Amino acid sequence: MNIALLFEEDLISTDTAVLTDRRLRHLQQVRDIKLGDQISVGQVNGLLGEATITELAPDSAKLSISWSKQPPAPLPVTLIIALPRPKMVKRIIQTVTTMGVKQLYFINSYKVEKSFWQSPWLTEAKLLENVVLGLEQAMDTQLPTIHLRKRFKPFVEDELPEIAKDSLRLVAHPSNNQNCPIQVEQQTTLAIGPEGGFIPYEVEKLESCGFTPVSLGDRILRTETAVPVLLSKLF
Amino acid sequence: MNIALLFEEDLISTDTAVLTDRRLRHLQQVRDIKLGDQISVGQVNGLLGEATITELAPDSAKLSISWSKQPPAPLPVTLIIALPRPKMVKRIIQTVTTMGVKQLYFINSYKVEKSFWQSPWLTEAKLLENVVLGLEQAMDTQLPTIHLRKRFKPFVEDELPEIAKDSLRLVAHPSNNQNCPIQVEQQTTLAIGPEGGFIPYEVEKLESCGFTPVSLGDRILRTETAVPVLLSKLF
Repeated sequence: MNIALLFEEDLISTDTAVLTDRRLRHLQQVRDIKLGDQISVGQVNGLLGEATITELAPDSAKLSISWSKQPPAPLPVTLIIALPRPKMVKRIIQTVTTMGVKQLYFINSYKVEKSFWQSPWLTEAKLLENVVLGLEQAMDTQLPTIHLRKRFKPFVEDELPEIAKDSLRLVAHPSNNQNCPIQVEQQTTLAIGPEGGFIPYEVEKLESCGFTPVSLGDRILRTETAVPVLLSKLF
Repeated sequence: MNIALLFEEDLISTDTAVLTDRRLRHLQQVRDIKLGDQISVGQVNGLLGEATITELAPDSAKLSISWSKQPPAPLPVTLIIALPRPKMVKRIIQTVTTMGVKQLYFINSYKVEKSFWQSPWLTEAKLLENVVLGLEQAMDTQLPTIHLRKRFKPFVEDELPEIAKDSLRLVAHPSNNQNCPIQVEQQTTLAIGPEGGFIPYEVEKLESCGFTPVSLGDRILRTETAVPVLLSKLF
């Protein structure tokens, strides 16, 4: 937690907040904060700042905040990932949020097991929890939006053309395709398949929507590794 | 498991092997293999090949192997990482092995908790287990070497000059330093600090050994994300 992310309900005025819950426990247990200490904070979808602890009780801390700067720029990417197995979902959300992704679609694919869609990590509360952890790690304040799309074909046919409009469209697909381009510096829509990859039908559907298959070389990476690798090659 | 990695003790002749243990259970339970099926295999520090299952019992499978090609090229990097917390060690070993790192040093640093060195993931057996999982994911056969160095100063003063000789030397350090270079295509020694970073004394010691601090921008990444990001920018 490199910042404490503050929600509207934490603020009692524009520059005063009361901190409770997980964020306070972290500051007490990991950082051992004292009255008068300074901590870094951010307001959801707002500025970053420095806060002084002006009151401290076991279950709450009052902060006096000096808002100072904009959060880091987002990555110009919309990320589309075939829903990974539940234990990976949490990590991938945190990773992509930390790296600055603001639009994330989890979609279905032939090789996505149906049970994955029942994952407790996909509830609204759990999605938000992991997004917040990612923002706090990155010292970012801008909440990403996570979309869940349980049907591949309607998503690609009806929604994707508008989502990907005017962007560079890439689908990561291990094979003899061209290598992933480097530092493209343009709005990009990036699709990443499940473990085992998209099936040929799915790649064809994406190609007919303007996507170009790109490869990361001979090594087959897990989704959780492929995501940061692709994002750091592209941007 | 994209290949089954075979050790000398699995081979009963140059092109015949008997498979047991975790690898067989994976093939039975996840891949549902049958007599006559083909699977991809690799020999530790040797070639990749295709194997036909010529005998199949509940607790063993006999493979007839056609060795065909070299494993993918390693990354030209020696990676030096301040020992992360135990639950991250396993993932980082798998990730760097999958990406092609062949020399990995876990070192001490001021912000590494002493208890981390007691982690069960650092036993020789557990290190090998995770290295093998990384190689099987990447379809690679060349075992990396993992070195444990529990004292920072003797490592940097006595060993590092020889380890880093004739290489580009970079230390990832979040700050206003120059950005991490892109696609350097030369032998590189890359040092990555603990959560919270190397302390100034440690950065100075590395600088006096020829290391240049480089940054990944404003966002602070977890070690497990910083590692694939740095490797994919550099290579």
